[in-house]
Amino acid sequence: MRLFHRFTQGELRLTRIEAFSDGIFAVAVTLLVLDLKVPELHDRADVHELAQALLDQLPRFLSWLISFIIVCKFWLNHHHLLGLARHADYGFVWLNSIFLMGQSFIPFPTALVGAYHGNALAVSFFGCVFALNTLMFMALQAYVMRRLIKPELAALQDPHALRKAFLGPLSYLNGAAAAWIYIPAAFIIYALTPLLYITPPQGREKARSASRAVK
Amino acid sequence: MRLFHRFTQGELRLTRIEAFSDGIFAVAVTLLVLDLKVPELHDRADVHELAQALLDQLPRFLSWLISFIIVCKFWLNHHHLLGLARHADYGFVWLNSIFLMGQSFIPFPTALVGAYHGNALAVSFFGCVFALNTLMFMALQAYVMRRLIKPELAALQDPHALRKAFLGPLSYLNGAAAAWIYIPAAFIIYALTPLLYITPPQGREKARSASRAVK
Amino acid sequence: MRLFHRFTQGELRLTRIEAFSDGIFAVAVTLLVLDLKVPELHDRADVHELAQALLDQLPRFLSWLISFIIVCKFWLNHHHLLGLARHADYGFVWLNSIFLMGQSFIPFPTALVGAYHGNALAVSFFGCVFALNTLMFMALQAYVMRRLIKPELAALQDPHALRKAFLGPLSYLNGAAAAWIYIPAAFIIYALTPLLYITPPQGREKARSASRAVK
Amino acid sequence: MRLFHRFTQGELRLTRIEAFSDGIFAVAVTLLVLDLKVPELHDRADVHELAQALLDQLPRFLSWLISFIIVCKFWLNHHHLLGLARHADYGFVWLNSIFLMGQSFIPFPTALVGAYHGNALAVSFFGCVFALNTLMFMALQAYVMRRLIKPELAALQDPHALRKAFLGPLSYLNGAAAAWIYIPAAFIIYALTPLLYITPPQGREKARSASRAVK
Repeated sequence: MRLFHRFTQGELRLTRIEAFSDGIFAVAVTLLVLDLKVPELHDRADVHELAQALLDQLPRFLSWLISFIIVCKFWLNHHHLLGLARHADYGFVWLNSIFLMGQSFIPFPTALVGAYHGNALAVSFFGCVFALNTLMFMALQAYVMRRLIKPELAALQDPHALRKAFLGPLSYLNGAAAAWIYIPAAFIIYALTPLLYITPPQGREKARSASRAVK
Repeated sequence: MRLFHRFTQGELRLTRIEAFSDGIFAVAVTLLVLDLKVPELHDRADVHELAQALLDQLPRFLSWLISFIIVCKFWLNHHHLLGLARHADYGFVWLNSIFLMGQSFIPFPTALVGAYHGNALAVSFFGCVFALNTLMFMALQAYVMRRLIKPELAALQDPHALRKAFLGPLSYLNGAAAAWIYIPAAFIIYALTPLLYITPPQGREKARSASRAVK
Repeated sequence: MRLFHRFTQGELRLTRIEAFSDGIFAVAVTLLVLDLKVPELHDRADVHELAQALLDQLPRFLSWLISFIIVCKFWLNHHHLLGLARHADYGFVWLNSIFLMGQSFIPFPTALVGAYHGNALAVSFFGCVFALNTLMFMALQAYVMRRLIKPELAALQDPHALRKAFLGPLSYLNGAAAAWIYIPAAFIIYALTPLLYITPPQGREKARSASRAVK
Repeated sequence: MRLFHRFTQGELRLTRIEAFSDGIFAVAVTLLVLDLKVPELHDRADVHELAQALLDQLPRFLSWLISFIIVCKFWLNHHHLLGLARHADYGFVWLNSIFLMGQSFIPFPTALVGAYHGNALAVSFFGCVFALNTLMFMALQAYVMRRLIKPELAALQDPHALRKAFLGPLSYLNGAAAAWIYIPAAFIIYALTPLLYITPPQGREKARSASRAVK
């Protein structure tokens, strides 16, 4: 109880939290490229050998692409969420840190699936990590909605938003399950799921005019 | 249609988009140095062996240099472009994310050409990546010009700017083609092309006094 | 004497110091993931072999987790501390740089303990690095309290705060000592110590209303 | 002539230039830690073998330490310099980019000298890179002083400042020369030279009250 009480204290400016978060998003997303390896060639000038080696890396390019889009999607929704909060407390900072831990973890399953794209466990693990990340984002979202939302925006929120948001993790878990049956299906599901989140959720039309006043 | 409609919504502050973008630019450009490898020496204290090993890396230094300058060029033009926009919408955020994906990819072709500077495919690939990045930037630019430009700056823009801008990708593709005939020519073209963009395009004189008022 | 005098000069805006610090925190914490290695498999599609290889990496996941939480804890306390300062002088900048050097060092002992979690020296070294980092943070804290604190917040500070703060380094050193007797005890101590700092110290209730006025 | 004219145009806000620069400084300085390698042990639990392996890395720790301090020194002086400028033009942006290219290069000579601390060429190269970086910073400084300085600060600057500033590169070059005679002397010179710059140069007392007004 006292521990919980400590978390609800503190009034932190959002600017440094945004800077720290943006830094982690940016580094995580850019580190993904380190997984694209320069291939070893027997004949350094052989164009055909290099072409073949690059084609062999196609799964790495694909997993890099999917992860990049998904991190950008998280960034956009994080950006939108922090715009709803009037300030941060310690509970928010810690939930945010745990969420960012999940984001900074993404290069690992991406490298794993890039290396072992024919391994059902690697492909399934990839999807589970995204499901978990989405759940952590939803926890952050729920915390803001309950405790930190700007009063003038509270009324504009869709009360069923959180329930609807479970679609995302379910879709990723769907892909993670599909990996055990037919791997390409898993990749298709992973690539399509971000479309659910390409724009932040609910109350858009109204929130728009409200957020304009905020700046 | 409905999907497109969602993209045109949202009014996002540019500050966090700039922070995320600057983070990716900065990380991408600094990761380039990881491609300069400490050579293996047989005799650790042998000055001549180290000198030879460093000279052998000259192509890596050269590709590092070209990529660094090109990313800085993109950063400067990105900076200029965002100064023209009054805010961002979701369409902008996604075009920007795809553009940044291209920027964060640059360390890979740089490492490739550093390792295989005598391989026409590697050298040609290098140029194609830059051409593609420039095209993505032009898409971002066109989006801002059509939908997000500050009204007071709209009149100052050169209506032929976009058509002129095709010079850049064409020049990179020229280099990419030249790589198949004579590799050094490709490097010269890659090194000279950024000069087309060392300062942001069109309407400078006038935009200057206008942008002064903005700050 | 003259050297010391130079340090007390300068009035630097905190914004760039925060940006530089946040950058280092964010990069250090995200680089931790590079230590999670994609395992080498004999049979690339073998699910059981991959599962075993991932389980073998459990100590690496654990040390990654502990270090991530600890860096976030430092970030939060750093954020709180800078909120108390009215500006920075050169002495602060240099103490801060040395503190950040300690933060950016954390990926090394993390990788070491991840690789050699059964080696008492590696586990002990891990704890000593955290103890040293905490001491460096305390030096920064003492400097702010003596020279740079906002006058309106000075009265709200707990005069015994610094003495109490020694609990942290003592706890880490305790873990570092325990590593020589029973390694799991050390890990438990390392994982529990951050709980002492999950919220910034002393005078919270009062500082809260004061800091509200600051923004 | 026309090219030069283009460089003197543009009025860019310093905030994004600072963000990009801080990002590069922060990434460069944190990447240095990647050069501290986890040693290979025959007996994973052998405390003595690990202790020996860590002691063998002492030169790497030392070069890491020197480079970290030197980059922080550059950051502080860069911070001070940008505080003197009223805005940036394209010439400034490009000089700044070339300076940052030098900063982002530092991890390479640091790794080189860490690996081959007994090789005169490696040690000498280390010093030459710092001398070159200092010269590039001086070019940036001269550009700001001539073209971009805030009018109210111009009178406070020491007119001999630039001439005095040559002390720094000369000292690094001195170390680079000493490496060919007695390597430890070079390290001592590299470690002491940053003391010349621990606080930004000239007109401090006066600039202080002036810069206070700026914020």
